[in-house]
Amino acid sequence: MTRQRTVSGMRPTGSLHLGHYFGVIKNWVEMQKEMDCFFFVADWHALTSDYAEPARIKGFVPELVKDWVASGLNPEECVIFQQSLVKEHSELNLLFGMITPLGWLERCPTYKEQRDQITNKDLGNYGFLGYPVLMATDILMYRPQWVPVGQDQLPHVEMTREIARRFNFLYQTDFFPEPQARLTPEAKLPGLDGRKMSKSYNNSIYLRESMEEITPKVRGMLTDQNRLRKTDPGDPKVCNLFPYHVLMTDEATQAEICQGCTTATLGCVDCKKILLTSMERFLAPIHERRRELDARPDMVRDIINHGTERARVEAQKTMEGVRKHFHFDF
Amino acid sequence: MTRQRTVSGMRPTGSLHLGHYFGVIKNWVEMQKEMDCFFFVADWHALTSDYAEPARIKGFVPELVKDWVASGLNPEECVIFQQSLVKEHSELNLLFGMITPLGWLERCPTYKEQRDQITNKDLGNYGFLGYPVLMATDILMYRPQWVPVGQDQLPHVEMTREIARRFNFLYQTDFFPEPQARLTPEAKLPGLDGRKMSKSYNNSIYLRESMEEITPKVRGMLTDQNRLRKTDPGDPKVCNLFPYHVLMTDEATQAEICQGCTTATLGCVDCKKILLTSMERFLAPIHERRRELDARPDMVRDIINHGTERARVEAQKTMEGVRKHFHFDF
Repeated sequence: MTRQRTVSGMRPTGSLHLGHYFGVIKNWVEMQKEMDCFFFVADWHALTSDYAEPARIKGFVPELVKDWVASGLNPEECVIFQQSLVKEHSELNLLFGMITPLGWLERCPTYKEQRDQITNKDLGNYGFLGYPVLMATDILMYRPQWVPVGQDQLPHVEMTREIARRFNFLYQTDFFPEPQARLTPEAKLPGLDGRKMSKSYNNSIYLRESMEEITPKVRGMLTDQNRLRKTDPGDPKVCNLFPYHVLMTDEATQAEICQGCTTATLGCVDCKKILLTSMERFLAPIHERRRELDARPDMVRDIINHGTERARVEAQKTMEGVRKHFHFDF
Repeated sequence: MTRQRTVSGMRPTGSLHLGHYFGVIKNWVEMQKEMDCFFFVADWHALTSDYAEPARIKGFVPELVKDWVASGLNPEECVIFQQSLVKEHSELNLLFGMITPLGWLERCPTYKEQRDQITNKDLGNYGFLGYPVLMATDILMYRPQWVPVGQDQLPHVEMTREIARRFNFLYQTDFFPEPQARLTPEAKLPGLDGRKMSKSYNNSIYLRESMEEITPKVRGMLTDQNRLRKTDPGDPKVCNLFPYHVLMTDEATQAEICQGCTTATLGCVDCKKILLTSMERFLAPIHERRRELDARPDMVRDIINHGTERARVEAQKTMEGVRKHFHFDF
């Protein structure tokens, strides 16, 4: 039996923080052992909204790959590639555009939502309307069974399935599978201020940050706001710090923390010290791999080029089949 | 001084008729001597409206090139290529889509007109809305000074200029020229029934047709409908046949025809015989070259591949520059 296949990507728009790690990357790292994984830097996608400042995108491409590999993606175990270097994606995107009804795109919930919410960029461009087509292209190019996504990305997977179905119907084939969404387990990690961890809220801890940078951030974190004095008992369930322990501190220690907090024998300052120790242990291998990558600047480019070659072989196979079905096999 | 450059294309949707020859191709044949010309088979364009029947497009690609070369396009003098084989077009199309406002496309007069008028095909697809972007891509890829067009294509040239301008503005460059429309001299050739010559009206004379096929068509043509008997004088100005003489019969004979028609000394039957002789003389070299092409089936594919190689060299140069301006030169 051949291994199953999955595809996913991220836009190169900044450094990854703990929220990305526990929400996405940790899941990828586990998946690479189970199936054939294609993970791509979605640099063309970033252009759909950041076309006016493309220079920023360029710098974040190696940064993203460093974050991935430092977090445990193994470039031999999975295929790490850069979208814009596999030119076949632009051809398939053009062809899928021919068979995609405008109405599907205009009614796409994320399209409407983002056009309404993002007010500091002009998103009224043709490419932005078409970005679910580009996403379907990126996925279907590798004909996977699975697409790992969060809840908010479900409409895109549905659109991908519809485009696959329409292609198969129009050209009387079963060439494209209809990939299934594989929902990422929701690992909720709030930001330092309790809101969603996000670059734009300035409430994040980045994977690349040193303990010197992280320590003051943790010290300043909000905890249980009803616990005014150390002698008051606290409640981990409403504490903003405790979810960090759940993800990074061993279970025995977590139990001790709960016990200490609810009985007012463990203060928040000490609780934060424990977290800093856990975090240091958690980040050590990530920082270690990161240092190796930083020491050899060619290495990241080599990783990208190696993965891109492997992706291209698959993309070319797919395009041969697609051109045949379009009768464009000249 | 370097030679000026021009780009134009046609969709492979059928054989060419005399209307195409006098309206477009004759002009191309003259231009190839004056400047560097890129003429392409717009097979991806054909997909914007014919995506449901792509097999038909495939057959018409060599047919179109045969018609061009038979009509006098010289594959050594100009670059004859096939759009879908120069993959760079799909990449530039994707990038131009990022910077093209939706409003430009939605307000494009030919878009609205065709969506209203063409009722037998579903044109509500993303690719059809974007076809002016694809057209701008095809043109700007070769950075020409001129685009030969008919009056109805002027909005597309204007959009091409706007996309060039927007690229140059966003990325602070003068990389793309703003090509000028070069209006094709209007050579009005009515169809056999007096309406516009068009495949869908079934009133055309095709370049590939033999005199055996053409003769009954000419015999059946309408002439001056007020001239009921041969003894009535006729009026070449309202005659449907006379424009054919203007384009294919020498001027001395044209003068004789006018004289004979208006004095009722030349009947329509004889006038048609003269036209058939002119047409035979006009079509002889076209048919001769056509026979050579038909006799060597590989020749057309060789012509296309040769031109495609030459086009690709230019397209790669352009894409290098474009990627640099997008900071996508990895």
